[in-house]
Amino acid sequence: MNNVYTQLQALGIDLPPVATPAAAYVPFVVQGSWIYLSGHIAKKDGQVLSGQLGLNMTTTQGHEAAKLVAIDLLGTLHAACLSVGKDLNDIDKIVKVMSLVSSTAHYTEQHLVTNGCSELIGAVFGAKGQHARSAFGVVQLPLGACVEIELVAALQA
Amino acid sequence: MNNVYTQLQALGIDLPPVATPAAAYVPFVVQGSWIYLSGHIAKKDGQVLSGQLGLNMTTTQGHEAAKLVAIDLLGTLHAACLSVGKDLNDIDKIVKVMSLVSSTAHYTEQHLVTNGCSELIGAVFGAKGQHARSAFGVVQLPLGACVEIELVAALQA
Amino acid sequence: MNNVYTQLQALGIDLPPVATPAAAYVPFVVQGSWIYLSGHIAKKDGQVLSGQLGLNMTTTQGHEAAKLVAIDLLGTLHAACLSVGKDLNDIDKIVKVMSLVSSTAHYTEQHLVTNGCSELIGAVFGAKGQHARSAFGVVQLPLGACVEIELVAALQA
Repeated sequence: MNNVYTQLQALGIDLPPVATPAAAYVPFVVQGSWIYLSGHIAKKDGQVLSGQLGLNMTTTQGHEAAKLVAIDLLGTLHAACLSVGKDLNDIDKIVKVMSLVSSTAHYTEQHLVTNGCSELIGAVFGAKGQHARSAFGVVQLPLGACVEIELVAALQA
Repeated sequence: MNNVYTQLQALGIDLPPVATPAAAYVPFVVQGSWIYLSGHIAKKDGQVLSGQLGLNMTTTQGHEAAKLVAIDLLGTLHAACLSVGKDLNDIDKIVKVMSLVSSTAHYTEQHLVTNGCSELIGAVFGAKGQHARSAFGVVQLPLGACVEIELVAALQA
Repeated sequence: MNNVYTQLQALGIDLPPVATPAAAYVPFVVQGSWIYLSGHIAKKDGQVLSGQLGLNMTTTQGHEAAKLVAIDLLGTLHAACLSVGKDLNDIDKIVKVMSLVSSTAHYTEQHLVTNGCSELIGAVFGAKGQHARSAFGVVQLPLGACVEIELVAALQA
């Protein structure tokens, strides 16, 4: 069983601090053994990564954006674990990811964009990172972001 | 600890009865200590509040619509609690909100619209009302509604 | 109490095998008594059912596509049950359905399309199949599919 933090280090990932939500909600809720993370929009160096797939971004760029969202989600997940005296090694399962890809009416590779998130989660958590998922195209996202992803995880009972 | 019903009264909110779904599903499911509310579309005086942000509605109007949805969600949540011999004071946590805002391709303030719901939930439930959230733009909603919101809550174990 | 498999036979439904996801995720996750199914896109005879409501598909055709998704979801739900030594008769509740309907900006019958899924689930599971639901219009789906649906269910404790 790999230590998750060792694995993050091996992948060259520094966990970011939790971003302040742009509105009246919180970044995570821990309820019993379940952790719900709010939708995280794509950011780079603290700035919103705006754009739309099919208009002014390629699938490769979207894939990279989804990977950046995954790193922010991991930072928030780490904070959520700490809030109840646990850490990422106490995660039993990444249960589900919902990925919203800002898309034109003709862009159909939302699944390939979302792989940027799913692949990183798999690399970090191994079998525990194998998650259920929905990915789809949305007409627009808050602040013009290109991708928004939310995540549900479960702590060991 | 405030009584939720006293707080609703102080805010001048009368809980509506549960609306009949427009289709083949139910307004809520209680499973163990979890309550899942179906997506509720914006209505005013029983009529669907149709419109689209960026086309024929302002952010302020969308915010008001989201507040009206929140009131309907609270009515349904109350009914869900009653169905298992509980009431709103037995809610342990508002866990998660998903908000779908009917938007043009250029409208990027879905988070400010959704605050109309989140702020009311916070005002009614206090710390227990601090929830995780996703908000995004959808190309269209059932019956032309401007906003649709679903909610997950947890009862005290 | 009906046997679910007898009911499927009476409805003339053969459960399909689990489809291989088109990307880096898994078709289902079982976590404790909860089952999360990934978003399943509409397929017929193994081919993606592409199209968009309001553009080149009628509500009746969308309803039929949603029914086909429901059959695929049931096949995956069956496999999920088997993975933990259970079967569909051990399902306690179909908790929630989220339905994404590829739509133009003017199409407003996503709820009627989604009934194709909800009605089949009701026919198969009876009272246990009465679920919460959100249905909305998305600008586009992976591989150009017309409908994508995800599902949450609970096993008997």
